[in-house]
Amino acid sequence: MASIYQSMSDAELAAELERLEAAAQALRDKGLKLDMARGKPSPEQTALSKPMLDLLTSETDLSDGTVLTENYFAPDGLPSARKLAAELLGVDAKNVIVNGSSSLNLMHDLVAHAFALGICGNEPWCRQGRAKFLCPAPGYDRHFTVTAHYGIENIPVPMTPDGPDMDMVERLVETDPQVKGIWCVPKYSNPQGYTYSDETVRRFAALKPAAPDFRIFWDNAYIVHDLYDEGDELLNIFDALAETGNDDLVYEFASTAKVTFPGSGMAFVTASDANMADIRAHFAAVRVCPEKISQFAHVAFLHDAAGVRAHMRKHAAVLRPRFELVERKLSEGLGDLGIATWTHPRGGYFVLFNGPEGSAKAIVALAKELGVTMTGAGATWPYGNDPHDSDIRIAPTFPTLDDLGQALDVFVCAVKLVSARLEASSRA
Amino acid sequence: MASIYQSMSDAELAAELERLEAAAQALRDKGLKLDMARGKPSPEQTALSKPMLDLLTSETDLSDGTVLTENYFAPDGLPSARKLAAELLGVDAKNVIVNGSSSLNLMHDLVAHAFALGICGNEPWCRQGRAKFLCPAPGYDRHFTVTAHYGIENIPVPMTPDGPDMDMVERLVETDPQVKGIWCVPKYSNPQGYTYSDETVRRFAALKPAAPDFRIFWDNAYIVHDLYDEGDELLNIFDALAETGNDDLVYEFASTAKVTFPGSGMAFVTASDANMADIRAHFAAVRVCPEKISQFAHVAFLHDAAGVRAHMRKHAAVLRPRFELVERKLSEGLGDLGIATWTHPRGGYFVLFNGPEGSAKAIVALAKELGVTMTGAGATWPYGNDPHDSDIRIAPTFPTLDDLGQALDVFVCAVKLVSARLEASSRA
Repeated sequence: MASIYQSMSDAELAAELERLEAAAQALRDKGLKLDMARGKPSPEQTALSKPMLDLLTSETDLSDGTVLTENYFAPDGLPSARKLAAELLGVDAKNVIVNGSSSLNLMHDLVAHAFALGICGNEPWCRQGRAKFLCPAPGYDRHFTVTAHYGIENIPVPMTPDGPDMDMVERLVETDPQVKGIWCVPKYSNPQGYTYSDETVRRFAALKPAAPDFRIFWDNAYIVHDLYDEGDELLNIFDALAETGNDDLVYEFASTAKVTFPGSGMAFVTASDANMADIRAHFAAVRVCPEKISQFAHVAFLHDAAGVRAHMRKHAAVLRPRFELVERKLSEGLGDLGIATWTHPRGGYFVLFNGPEGSAKAIVALAKELGVTMTGAGATWPYGNDPHDSDIRIAPTFPTLDDLGQALDVFVCAVKLVSARLEASSRA
Repeated sequence: MASIYQSMSDAELAAELERLEAAAQALRDKGLKLDMARGKPSPEQTALSKPMLDLLTSETDLSDGTVLTENYFAPDGLPSARKLAAELLGVDAKNVIVNGSSSLNLMHDLVAHAFALGICGNEPWCRQGRAKFLCPAPGYDRHFTVTAHYGIENIPVPMTPDGPDMDMVERLVETDPQVKGIWCVPKYSNPQGYTYSDETVRRFAALKPAAPDFRIFWDNAYIVHDLYDEGDELLNIFDALAETGNDDLVYEFASTAKVTFPGSGMAFVTASDANMADIRAHFAAVRVCPEKISQFAHVAFLHDAAGVRAHMRKHAAVLRPRFELVERKLSEGLGDLGIATWTHPRGGYFVLFNGPEGSAKAIVALAKELGVTMTGAGATWPYGNDPHDSDIRIAPTFPTLDDLGQALDVFVCAVKLVSARLEASSRA
């Protein structure tokens, strides 16, 4: 489809460019300072969890079954916290470790363990030549940073609305023993908001890796982060693994970072019996025990999976208008122009915007100039390298609705002006 | 000095053995189940910090300067928490990271970073042949476990009341580039309760390591854990380093695990500017940010170093009678027998008991049989290998005074019986 600018005559395009430059100047003159870059909850959302701080007092009996929350031990986490995490993940609590406040840190620790010491008795990745990781892209930059930090080669794999390109995943995983893992955000993927189809999950569960120490890093970051009562349904990967018998293929992670307090939630990991034994043996050397008072407070506040879902409906009430505003502003501003597409997530934290080839860096730079900080163009690609320079991650959660509306107006203006400039320069 | 059993005639020794066996049988018949193994605070101590749980409520303004405690960011920790930690350590807050609840975890992460990625741009230890670590012994088993976990060779170094044998430390560190670090608990050492002398600290600060990536892991675990108002004084290692100019030689660690809640305290690390830049660059890849709500509560509860010291006097009031009971029971039971010595710490968590050569495993086994669990014999030595089989760590903090008294009676009986048996078997 030709864009509106492509279909203009040179004179029309010149006039349009003049109008857009003037509109941009008017925005620039406002001296805005807005931020649409950060995937963090808004103050309205963190306020939802502040009542958690009322639940523990000096009078509270902190025993959790036989575990004294206020003292050492329980290296796998508080029994009640493991039960809650297990219920959320749909797995057995005996296969869950709740530890720390950062699931990214758990993911890192398992990459580092595999790299330096080896998974389940296999040779450490660092002694097997150059390890490779598959990176559905665009994806979560901090995932890619972890593997890049260890010199592991990040290989982009195209994303589709059903998940990663599974033909490519199968080909690479099943033929190349240097391919040691893949980063997945299977529900409301960062940054698209896509949820992997049942078929994708089943194909993951049926993988026959060339490497015995290949693992799927299944970061279920947005497992309960629905915007609507009818959320996307993700097939439980461990149910699928039970059918294929590939139990050891997956490490699954999640946290309450965006349920309660970002940075101060509970992080958890689950895996097969064999993997958990391997993880436990490693963690036994590197930690005394997790922070359990926060776990106790979380369970007192959230109770169980139903409690989490009820709490997440309050988050949804805050977030839904923001995502709907993104959809409305982009539709109204760009819907008929044939220059851009974007995703329409029903959960998660982001919208992926896809502009004309070669436009993303220029759009982000212009938006910055007009007073709006976006996630850096390319940041969602391994090594920051978006091959089409067209993807921009929109993070609508943190700003107020009013700020978000203004930021989106700036963004739409920047998209149009950059697109028109690109068309003009292609004719020059 | 000959022991009392050595000075007995065969008949006297036989009669004494009979008396001791009968005493042991009487204890065995009691069916006790006591524990003197674990270096953890008693319930009376953790109760001291429960008022911390009253300080944060849903009404609390959680902003810490410009940092929103309840959201992401502040990767080095909450500014107020860094200030508190810096005051305790006697360093600049800009050189402090407060992260997580386990200082052991911070130590591990820096060993792992050095092993897999390399310190300050040096080759990773894993690519430099077999790394070695010096282990003042007996020492803290979890330290030795971290390095052993990475296949690093743990080399015992004798401990003296002034600290490690510095002649040996200097010789090994300054001549062998494979020696990459040393584990130190410089104040109230685990398990002796020794505090390094000023001369020892100065000799550490003056080390000229053969390896550019040698680091002293200075675990100041008991920095404020005095039993008496007049505590041991430890020279500030960074003051000593300022004099020698070897700023990059040391990572220093501490935590509030045994100030507030074991497992749920604040852990911190400090080092030179160059080291902190290296640590920060690593942590940036592996963590989003630390748990800051717990940090906020800690600062609200402890305020500053003076607040910490006032709080620690309450701990001391709980612990002093326990340590004094150990001293009294051992003196009364074993003081005149010439079979054993023990340390007389003025702080920390342990007393080191030193029995006859070849007795420790037998004493611990017999105590177990009589109903008292001790720290495993040898556990305080690298690879569990106490060359004289004579060291036993006594952990008097957790049991009630009454239980502790009974446990010490059992222990004394076990020491005497094993010593008498050893003498008898040496004559057989």
